[in-house]
This record gives sequence, C-alpha cells and structure tokens, in this order.
Amino acid sequence: TVDGTALWTDILETARIGGTPKGGVRRLTLTEEDRQVRAWFAAACTALGCTVTHDSMGNQFARRPGRDATLPPITMGSHLDTQPTGGKFDGIVGVLGGLAVLRALHASGFETRHPIELINWTNEEGARFAPAMLASGVFAGVFTEQEALDKTDRDGIRFGDALAAIGYRGEAPCGDHPVAAYFELHIEQGPILEAEGKTIGIVTGVQGMRWYELTLTGRDSHAGTTPMTMRADALLAAARIIEAVSAVALAHGPNAVGTVGLLENRPNSRNVVPGEVFFSIDLRHPDDAVVAAMEADLRARIEQIVTDAGIGLEMARVWDSPAVHFDPACIASVRAATDSFGYPARDIVSGAGHDAAYMARVAPTTMVFVPCAGGLSHNEAESAEPGDVAAGANVLLRAVLDADIR
Amino acid sequence: TVDGTALWTDILETARIGGTPKGGVRRLTLTEEDRQVRAWFAAACTALGCTVTHDSMGNQFARRPGRDATLPPITMGSHLDTQPTGGKFDGIVGVLGGLAVLRALHASGFETRHPIELINWTNEEGARFAPAMLASGVFAGVFTEQEALDKTDRDGIRFGDALAAIGYRGEAPCGDHPVAAYFELHIEQGPILEAEGKTIGIVTGVQGMRWYELTLTGRDSHAGTTPMTMRADALLAAARIIEAVSAVALAHGPNAVGTVGLLENRPNSRNVVPGEVFFSIDLRHPDDAVVAAMEADLRARIEQIVTDAGIGLEMARVWDSPAVHFDPACIASVRAATDSFGYPARDIVSGAGHDAAYMARVAPTTMVFVPCAGGLSHNEAESAEPGDVAAGANVLLRAVLDADIR
Ligand SMILES: NC(=O)NCCC(=O)O
Ligand SMILES: NC(=O)NCCC(=O)O
Repeated sequence: TVDGTALWTDILETARIGGTPKGGVRRLTLTEEDRQVRAWFAAACTALGCTVTHDSMGNQFARRPGRDATLPPITMGSHLDTQPTGGKFDGIVGVLGGLAVLRALHASGFETRHPIELINWTNEEGARFAPAMLASGVFAGVFTEQEALDKTDRDGIRFGDALAAIGYRGEAPCGDHPVAAYFELHIEQGPILEAEGKTIGIVTGVQGMRWYELTLTGRDSHAGTTPMTMRADALLAAARIIEAVSAVALAHGPNAVGTVGLLENRPNSRNVVPGEVFFSIDLRHPDDAVVAAMEADLRARIEQIVTDAGIGLEMARVWDSPAVHFDPACIASVRAATDSFGYPARDIVSGAGHDAAYMARVAPTTMVFVPCAGGLSHNEAESAEPGDVAAGANVLLRAVLDADIR
Repeated sequence: TVDGTALWTDILETARIGGTPKGGVRRLTLTEEDRQVRAWFAAACTALGCTVTHDSMGNQFARRPGRDATLPPITMGSHLDTQPTGGKFDGIVGVLGGLAVLRALHASGFETRHPIELINWTNEEGARFAPAMLASGVFAGVFTEQEALDKTDRDGIRFGDALAAIGYRGEAPCGDHPVAAYFELHIEQGPILEAEGKTIGIVTGVQGMRWYELTLTGRDSHAGTTPMTMRADALLAAARIIEAVSAVALAHGPNAVGTVGLLENRPNSRNVVPGEVFFSIDLRHPDDAVVAAMEADLRARIEQIVTDAGIGLEMARVWDSPAVHFDPACIASVRAATDSFGYPARDIVSGAGHDAAYMARVAPTTMVFVPCAGGLSHNEAESAEPGDVAAGANVLLRAVLDADIR
C-alpha cells in the first residue's frame, strides 16, 4: 500500500504554489506557478530514482526502470494545472497519487517487469488555452503539434511562446513512445460516489462533449438616446442564447448539461449598448447521438434569436470529444485491485474530460475515481478526504502491478 | 460667424489622438491620449491670447478677458474624453466649437463685457470612472472632491492617482469661481434632428437617469459534472435580468430606455459554471416619476429571478441624475441666435447626460444640438456634417454674445 500521509503532505505542499486566500489554487497552465510546480514534481521524482524528461508539448515523464527495458512503460498520470479559481485536488490527486505509487515501489525495492512512467500533462484544464486535454491530445494524435503550439489565450499569447517562456519546450517529439497501459486517478468532480457512500468509482468511460465559440455582432450605440426599438444589442441576444443553452440541456434528459462559462462583452461601458459579444458554449451527454441532437436543437434556437434581434452571428464548433469506452482489461485490473482492498465501489461514467479520454485512443486505458465533497469541483472550496485519496492511490498501485504481470 | 473650416480641421486633428483603425477615437479619461489632447487644447487656446489653467479635478479653463474684470465669466464647454469605441464628435464638438468662438472673437478683436471662458471637463463619459459628468458634478457641488478622487476604474486605479499621473491635478479648488452663464454645443446623439431635417436643436432639458451596480453570487462548479438542477449559475440569472431590463423599458412607453452596458463574468472559464457576475444597469426617462416606477418594476422582477434561481444579490443605485430643466433666458438667447441665422430648428430634450446638466445647478445654462448621422453615437462610426457643426458654433457664438449684453 501507499504512504497516505506522505501523499496528503504532497497535496498540501503543492497547493501553496498558486494558493488563493479562499483555500483554492490558481495555477493556470504555462504560467510562473506552473513552472514552479513542474520543478517541484521533477525534484520529487528524481529523489525516488526516476529519470525525468519533458517532450515538445511540455508533458513531463518520470520513468522508473523495469526488468525488461524493451517493454513499453505502464503509465499513470494526470495534470497539475488548475482553473482560475480551482481546487487542490482536480488533476493533482492523479499526479501525486502516481508519485505515491512510485514511492511505494521505491521504498519496497519492488522490481516491475515494465518500466513504470508517471506523466504530468500540459494544459488539461483548457482554461487558458482551449480546448482541454490539449497536450495528451497531441500525444494521442488527435491534434497536430503545430495546431496546438499556435493556440492563443484570451490575451493573444501563443501556446508555443508561453511553453518556451517557462522553459518547457522539450526536444523529444510529443507522442514518440508507445505505452503499454495508462491509469489515471482523479476525484469524481460530481456528487454520485459521496451520495452513495462509495470510496472508489471504477470508470467505464467518459461522456461526449463539444465546445463552441460564438461572436454576436450588433451595433454600439448610446444607452440614453437610442430608442429600444432601434437597438442592435448583442448582449441582449447573448442573454437569450444563454437561456436557450440551459433550456436545451433541460430538454434532453437528466444526463444532459449545457453551459456558457466564458463571455466577453464589448465595448463594455455602462452607457453603451453592447455592439459585440464573444462567448463559449459547452454541451455534454454520455451518448454522442444525444450530443448531436442537442447541437441541432440549439442551433435552431440560436438562428431564431439572432434573426429576430437583427444580430450577426458567427458560430464555430471548436472541440468535439466523442464519448469514450475504456479498456475492459484495464477496468478488470481496477476492479480486482478495488476488491482486494474491499473498498465500497461502483461503476461510473465520467462527466468531465480527462487526459485518459485521449490516451484511450493509443493505449489500453482506464481511470479510478474517489469522492469529493458535495461533488463540487472547479471551485476553490473543492475538497476530498485523505482516506479516500489514499484508497484511490492504493487501487492505482495494485492496478498497475496487475497490468504489469498481465 | 465662426471659421467653419478651421473648426473642422481641429476636429480632424484632435481625432488623431487616440484615433482607431475604424475611424473612431479611443481616448479614455486620464490616459496618455487624454494628456496629449489636453496639451493640444492648452496650446490652441494660448495661441488665441487666452490664459489656460486647470483645477484640482483637472478641468481646463481657457479665459479671454472682458471689459469688466469684476464680472463672472460667460462660459462654454464640453469634454474631450471618449468612450472605449467612441467617435470624433461626442463632446469634442462642444470644446472645439467653443474654440471656434474664441477664434472668431480673437480675429475680430471684439471686446465682450464679461470674461469668456471655455471649459474642457474631466471624465464626462463615465466610461473609465463611474458615474458620468464626475468633474462638472464636483464643480456644481453634486459630489465632493474627495469622493471623486477616490473613485476607481475596473482595474482598481484611483481617479486621483490617474489625474496626478498625467500631471493635471491642479492647485485651484474645483468650483472656486462663479459663472454668469454656461452654454454647451453637442451633437444630438439621437435620431430626431436628422429625421426632421433640422440643423439646430434648442435644448430645453435633460432626461432623468439612474445607474445601478449588481453582483450576483452563485457557485463555481464543473460544467461537465454538475447536473442542471444542482447549479447556481450566476450568468444564467444575469441573462434573465438583462432580458428584464429590456422588458421594463419597453413596458414604460416609447421614451423609456434600459441598458446593461458593462458585464464581468467570473471566473470566466469555458468549463466552469459561473459563480459570480458583476454588471451595470442604466435606466432613463424624461420624467423622474417614470424613472422611479421603472426602478420599482425592475427591482421586483430581479428579486423574483434571483429567488427562483437561488442566487445571491447585491444591488446598489450608484448614480441618480434627475431630469433637468434649462434656464429660460439662456434658451431665449439660443433661440434668438438660431432665428438670426434662419437655421431650421426645434426644441428638444437630451437623452444623454451632459456637463450642462450639472452646471444648470449653479449657473443659468442651456445647450445647442446639431444632428449626427443616423442618431449614432458611442460608436466609432459616429458622424456629423461640417456645415451643421459650423452652424452650431455660430449659434453658440451669438448666444454667448446675447448673454453678454443681457
Ligand atoms: N477534469 C477536468 O476538470 N477536466 C477539464 C476538462 C473538462 O471536463 O472540461
Ligand atoms: N454625452 C454623453 O454621451 N454623455 C455620457 C453620459 C451619458 O449620457 O451616459
């Protein structure tokens, strides 16, 4: 088993890098805070005898040799970047849980057959550079490296430039080595495990998700002199679309969600009728056919809204991550590991995207979930129990060892 | 009469300071661009033999002596600051039209009885520091100087610090001298004069206006894992309030307007259900009783929306500028001046706030409007005809001379 105390100490220690007054973490990808936590990660893994490298997308790999150097590694991983107002656990539990596994192997001197590799993926959150899971996407061949390097944040800074600026643009091409299996430990980020009193979620897949960017074009005009009937108010049209996104999600059953998370109003002055609004839409459902139906429904409503309001519309689908079904053998390893400890568990589909969703395209993959308080995530108050996190790392350890002898 | 060509040249020349690619002007108050246009203004007035000073709020005064130094000045003025995406005329026509008047007096060597003073008011737009007409408000005793100096922009920069930084925090206390009369030339910023083929609007008053600031507090949560029914989405509640503002304006007759111009969404990340939204509301009507009724109607709707959505609300009225009725004698001077030229004209109530609205509290005051294309203002495409602008300056000149001998 892993050292749960050391794992919890690691969580609290890294939470200081970008720690917020409200007890959360603000550690956007490729910022100074990200650089600091990467250095911490490299030092911690090196201390356990691992070789630490990073590739051309800045993904960090800590490798512990196995008996047979010709075998591809069994990998674990997640991410250390956070949302602007993120918590101490999302992603972090997966990386530091993997570190706890390496520590357990190191302490016992256990020799695995495969090399064991722990990965810290760049830009999982998609908060600074859209879309999410960008660097694992490049690793898995979903995006080309060039398109990823050319992504810009909302200030127009290129991903490639930000990566170089923190010193993590490596020489090794992203995706250069095969992987025997990939396991990712994560908090559930939803309410189900806690509500049902389960310690472990055996993750069978990830729901489908699509992101859109919209620009509405009206006409800047004076708030005091422009009669209501002569306005082309882009924010009013955006308000109606925000309501429509919610209505579409509610109309497609209890598993459908729809969100407007990002919105920029222009020129954003109190006495100017807004002439332009840029915003994002996020649609999700476990069934890809329902995601497609949601999109069709929403597009029809949006057309109606902008036509009625006399507002110009540009709308692009900027991300499409179809539903993922994880590898049965990996799932079996996680189930066997969970049963060996007797942890209360259930099967679960992930509502959030994860690097595992892309790794599943190039390697046998699955995930292990542990509960988080109230299902709250992407919030500074995100919280999880030390015992649950240690249990998740224990399952990760035994699942990896199970896959190693498979 | 004034030199219309010189006036138009001045308009084009100042429009280069903060000029935008789309032909508009971005010259937010107390920025480097504002400093440059102030220097231009001081130099231009000095060249006409005027003494140029500025007071503790940064208001600039260009004074041409009269025969009787004991008399208070007859004043003209407006502002040279603009909206973030503003035009070349809003405010500017009033200052440069006043400059054209000074130039005509200088060229002819005409001696007035009163000193004549041209004023460039600080922060009329209210785009950077709310509310609008802040510095004329201090001059008129509506706000204390201290509360004005302590206002902050959306980046938290203090008005007083920004004023000192551009070198315009003068020694003379704002509002230290009495004024015999105040005349302000301005584009209408609305569609009426153009639609009716009138050159001059004889402004009888300004409508009532109120500004509000709202903060909605929901709960940041994950866009993929938080069921629609478990969300506290501050942006969705804001969307409903934006719709309600429009509905309230439409419900209170054709002269009522309501606008949400400024909105900040937090944390503003694509995959986070927004936990906090800050936004402004602007309500206006020529009749103060209707403004009050609009506020009551809107407050009731907002209460309902936030209660239904389980969202926290902070709402403050941050500005209340009641309807203004201008001075009959000044209006008579403008009417006589207009008639003397035979310009087609009509009486009009201003939909926009102006420094004249506050000056009316401490001096006999009125305004002169000229048409602008399509009634469009607070827009980079704002436009006016050289002939109309010159006509307005001619009326300003004769109205000032009429008041001088009254
Ligand atoms: N795990 C996680 O929060 N990933 C971010 C990608 C998404 O699901 O929006
Ligand atoms: N004239 C003008 O646009 N003033 C700004 C104040 C307002 O009316 O909102």
